[in-house]
Amino acid sequence: MSCVFCELLKTGEARWVVLEPDAVAFLPLPADEFAPGHTLVVPRRHSVGVHDADERDVVAVAALVRRISRAMVSALGATGVVVLNASGPNSGQTVAHLHVHVVPRWDDDEETLPWLRQRSTRSLTAPAHQLLAAALRSARPPG
Amino acid sequence: MSCVFCELLKTGEARWVVLEPDAVAFLPLPADEFAPGHTLVVPRRHSVGVHDADERDVVAVAALVRRISRAMVSALGATGVVVLNASGPNSGQTVAHLHVHVVPRWDDDEETLPWLRQRSTRSLTAPAHQLLAAALRSARPPG
Repeated sequence: MSCVFCELLKTGEARWVVLEPDAVAFLPLPADEFAPGHTLVVPRRHSVGVHDADERDVVAVAALVRRISRAMVSALGATGVVVLNASGPNSGQTVAHLHVHVVPRWDDDEETLPWLRQRSTRSLTAPAHQLLAAALRSARPPG
Repeated sequence: MSCVFCELLKTGEARWVVLEPDAVAFLPLPADEFAPGHTLVVPRRHSVGVHDADERDVVAVAALVRRISRAMVSALGATGVVVLNASGPNSGQTVAHLHVHVVPRWDDDEETLPWLRQRSTRSLTAPAHQLLAAALRSARPPG
């Protein structure tokens, strides 16, 4: 059986934030966004979740989640972020390839919604993946 | 101002799962548990969240989250896990020291509750932190 994210990594059709050797980041389909800038961080190598992934992949994903979070503060004006991962059966996971949601939060988001039951109403000045990608480039120059 | 988790790391009063050089894991107060075995993974060094933590601490926390997740499957019989972190203002964060929730999920949990709006009704055969600690010891012998 094919994996949606493995296929995506081959075909390249997404709103990419960054493509790195072990992990990539991109925006989910608009209908699946909790907020503008909502980003998925995914290891290139297939695993179902954090419980069956190699440590190397989990570490690569976590380091990229950190940098994405910083970019959300610097580039999107977020005050905070929510990081979410569902791994394995009964977790609510919808795509069976390890992916971590990183969702920016702002001061007009409801404080009482820690786990994102409603979408943010925030609008941004440019496509979120472009803002984030630029912030990542400026935080760590390539090469 | 003092930090609750920094104080906890000094005083040692918790249901510890594991204490390591860079990160520790323990169960939250019972009233704050989403499920039995719900574990917090925390870096020893203070930061507010994933956005202001050193990469070293984020990586140590992530590697321990992975091992805790594996222990939830092997020692608690979980089918999956949910990993949650709230970082910074408007994220729903309640303690301003980086902490990652790792919550086991079972086949009698509602599939439609990915972000844990209700507590699990699962009961375990022994205190969850003891089951998890033993699984971690057997997965990676000390020394």
